[in-house]
Amino acid sequence: MKKHNFSAGPCILPQEVFQEASQAVLNFNNSGLSILEISHRSKAFVDVMEEARNLSLELLGLKGKGYQALFLQGGASLEFLMVAYNLLEKKAAYLNTGTWADKAIKEAQLFGEVDVVASSKDKNFNYIPKGYKIPKDADYFHCTSNNTIFGTQMKRFPATSVPLVCDMSSDIFSRQMDFSKFDLIYAGAQKNMGPAGTTLVIIKDDILGKVTRKIPSMLDYKQHIEKESMYNTPSVYPVYVSLLTLRWLKAQGGIAAIEKLNKKKAVLMYSEIDINPLFKGFTANEDRSIMNATFNLKNESLKDQFDKMWKEAGIIGLNGHRSVGGYRASMYNALPLESVQVLVDVMGDLERKA
Amino acid sequence: MKKHNFSAGPCILPQEVFQEASQAVLNFNNSGLSILEISHRSKAFVDVMEEARNLSLELLGLKGKGYQALFLQGGASLEFLMVAYNLLEKKAAYLNTGTWADKAIKEAQLFGEVDVVASSKDKNFNYIPKGYKIPKDADYFHCTSNNTIFGTQMKRFPATSVPLVCDMSSDIFSRQMDFSKFDLIYAGAQKNMGPAGTTLVIIKDDILGKVTRKIPSMLDYKQHIEKESMYNTPSVYPVYVSLLTLRWLKAQGGIAAIEKLNKKKAVLMYSEIDINPLFKGFTANEDRSIMNATFNLKNESLKDQFDKMWKEAGIIGLNGHRSVGGYRASMYNALPLESVQVLVDVMGDLERKA
Repeated sequence: MKKHNFSAGPCILPQEVFQEASQAVLNFNNSGLSILEISHRSKAFVDVMEEARNLSLELLGLKGKGYQALFLQGGASLEFLMVAYNLLEKKAAYLNTGTWADKAIKEAQLFGEVDVVASSKDKNFNYIPKGYKIPKDADYFHCTSNNTIFGTQMKRFPATSVPLVCDMSSDIFSRQMDFSKFDLIYAGAQKNMGPAGTTLVIIKDDILGKVTRKIPSMLDYKQHIEKESMYNTPSVYPVYVSLLTLRWLKAQGGIAAIEKLNKKKAVLMYSEIDINPLFKGFTANEDRSIMNATFNLKNESLKDQFDKMWKEAGIIGLNGHRSVGGYRASMYNALPLESVQVLVDVMGDLERKA
Repeated sequence: MKKHNFSAGPCILPQEVFQEASQAVLNFNNSGLSILEISHRSKAFVDVMEEARNLSLELLGLKGKGYQALFLQGGASLEFLMVAYNLLEKKAAYLNTGTWADKAIKEAQLFGEVDVVASSKDKNFNYIPKGYKIPKDADYFHCTSNNTIFGTQMKRFPATSVPLVCDMSSDIFSRQMDFSKFDLIYAGAQKNMGPAGTTLVIIKDDILGKVTRKIPSMLDYKQHIEKESMYNTPSVYPVYVSLLTLRWLKAQGGIAAIEKLNKKKAVLMYSEIDINPLFKGFTANEDRSIMNATFNLKNESLKDQFDKMWKEAGIIGLNGHRSVGGYRASMYNALPLESVQVLVDVMGDLERKA
């Protein structure tokens, strides 16, 4: 039976990507060798890395605009640390929109003063704070564009004179934006970009080199840029599968095209949540994520029945994060509209039966 | 034509592993899902991580002896930093046997005094220093068991009262040793253990918690141990393929059996280097690595002829590292004896023809 994978990440990737990725494990580019056994210094892999870096910038509309793309290891969690190590001299401003922002704040506090300009902790992070002020003397402002756990998403970003740093792990490549407003963007691959094991970092060169501390080599963006993202052995296969996914995205028509599909999926999903009397959404309407829709049953006694129904429909990964409960439908780029339709149909069936 | 992969890493893995690893990208454990799209919190992957951690300890003979196994990201290069961050309070002792040891020393110097107890830099690292003294007040002693670039290998390890830390990236799981002599062992996966993208760290719990500095979460071994190697999203596929490779090793008869094969390959290789008048070995005989044999043509004018011959025989990855030149035959666990025979035959052919 066909599976409908609503997992929050690692998550569904395009079926074509799985086919090509599987083949490359046996025979990469007709070399007679597996992608897993080739040297990372071989021309074949250097080409993969180069194309992945260029294509990332191209898809974000950042080519030739003073940005570098890196494929590092350690996930967003290591970036929480690297951002502060590389940029925080005295004070940084952070927006607290949930678990991931909170972790980023905690790491930054090891390196300097952290001004949390606003937080939505008062309502278990079910909205995005607005109207806050960013101090002009901050070394940078850090925010999280989409919160996977709570299902909120920043629709607008503050105008600020300080460098803008954004954790886009769960919505990069999903919607059009003027990415040149950002000075540093990072994203763990395992949502819209590829499998777990690599992290995309997009940096405007000119924000680096301004802190006085000595930065360990592996945490130093400058070192990674200088070595063209090959300071040490990169995560070869995750980078390769990310490239396949980025190529797929380009073939779909890029971010503009995928955004249209993502919006269709989100409209279908949220309409059902709002219309169906058995369910209620978790987040403030204006801050709803088009990637992760969080919702609850109004009547918990229907839980067993509903869970049985969606599982029978081939749906997986629908349980909410333990800190929120309820349900979470993650609708990343590769999730087909059809899968959302299957879920919405199950929700409708429950209404008729209950 | 069959390829004989002598690459220094990433490198050859068992063919059975490639088959199973390729299948799992399409359909993991008959789940109807790709290994690349399942949640790292799913039971299926938690089981993979658990088995990989246990099997590592089992193969090294360290089960139930107070050790923890972690599968982290960032390669040995990040461990250079993490070792110092977690263990270096005042002074650490390091043995400098080449490029990797040198890098480890450089990172440690950011955190305290580094006493380089001996170095073989005077002879371009073509031997392993002996007879050095390790200061009793050092927080730990750090060494590199095998040097991939120069082809040297430590055959004995010093008896010392301070914690023994070893970078075993290029020879872990290749030879029997009393691994319980070590307090911390780390190894990038991409030689004997799996594809690039994960790093095995084996730690004796009781050496942690002795430094006064605050350790960032992602660099803190204690955090990773507490979260059972799932502090953040691990490198799912590299960990899975490492597990397949460890299972293969166990099925071969474990380290004892593979060591026999590795010694056979090394004897065959070094015999040819010593007997064939056209070649000379790069390293001191008593320090020769059974993993990486480095050698040169005595007469450089034969280079083009030799290069053509081995390439025609299906051999790849034989060029030496740029800092040494010449040739390097990396003979990791998964390289069959047959491949070494093919190389030795080509060297013999050259002798007859030249």
